[in-house]
Amino acid sequence: VREDIVQAATRVFSRRGYHAASMAEIADEVGMRKPSLYHHVRKKEDLLFAIHERLIDELIDETMAVLSTSRNPEEKMREVLRVAVGLVARHRDGVTVFLRERRSVSGERWAELTVKRDLYEKMVGRVVSEGIADERFIDVPAAVATRAILGMANWSSMWFEPEGELAAESLADIFAQLALNGLIRR
Amino acid sequence: VREDIVQAATRVFSRRGYHAASMAEIADEVGMRKPSLYHHVRKKEDLLFAIHERLIDELIDETMAVLSTSRNPEEKMREVLRVAVGLVARHRDGVTVFLRERRSVSGERWAELTVKRDLYEKMVGRVVSEGIADERFIDVPAAVATRAILGMANWSSMWFEPEGELAAESLADIFAQLALNGLIRR
Repeated sequence: VREDIVQAATRVFSRRGYHAASMAEIADEVGMRKPSLYHHVRKKEDLLFAIHERLIDELIDETMAVLSTSRNPEEKMREVLRVAVGLVARHRDGVTVFLRERRSVSGERWAELTVKRDLYEKMVGRVVSEGIADERFIDVPAAVATRAILGMANWSSMWFEPEGELAAESLADIFAQLALNGLIRR
Repeated sequence: VREDIVQAATRVFSRRGYHAASMAEIADEVGMRKPSLYHHVRKKEDLLFAIHERLIDELIDETMAVLSTSRNPEEKMREVLRVAVGLVARHRDGVTVFLRERRSVSGERWAELTVKRDLYEKMVGRVVSEGIADERFIDVPAAVATRAILGMANWSSMWFEPEGELAAESLADIFAQLALNGLIRR
């Protein structure tokens, strides 16, 4: 039931925006009466938190798995992008909410999410730095290059249609081609 | 006065989100009483529309100027990115609102903005297609490459600090370096 509620909240937040969405709409979306919803969820913010936490945990786990292989920086970057685009493909509405509402909430437990976001960025930055140190990649500021590449992937949540003609796999390949061609020293 | 109101609304929408923001907060921000604000602005949506319209018009004008030069696709792309990053640097809060709230509103006059957004994307796509046709750029789907590159620039509104250490000019150069290195055929 909790899973269904989080899924329904994700769709409603994506469609309406977090602030505009009401618990009544979420109850409607899940096919439940409002009092029953409150039986499972104390407040709207808890749902936003659950959406964020799941996504960032999944992203970190999969990216960590890529980093711990013995591949070279190019191959790691290709896989890192595949993971990021895969997340958009599997959880498009969730990623939209995640990215759009990153400043909608504050308070102690959100600090934990900020730590995780920073950790993810650091992991990707590490791949870029390794490539620069190896002289495989061009000499650009690693943090800026990392954000440029992640921006490309993040932004895809705004236009990529998981059910459309372009497969997530192909999108990841094109991103990897552009990002790697962009990074690799000639 | 109208200019001050639009500026104040931009800051409030950026900070609070469009839906969460109230006309009272905007009146506060501009240092005006609410009835006086309503004297100048009929409703909150008009302010969101004004923010969107100014930005897209400025972006299109400047990008059009780049396109109408006789530069080659590489040089045009460098300038296109400079224009996009320049917009973020000059109007960071506005761009944040523009990108985050693109689906917050609907109705007839918003259709006009969608037409303009598509036009902008088409202009940038044209530079990419020219480069591919010339065999200067690698053979990637032009529309996807365009969105990848614009994503990089758009996303910078989420983290770039116009008052920070990294100058907008340097950011544009790094983006151009990555995007062009990424696009150019070896």
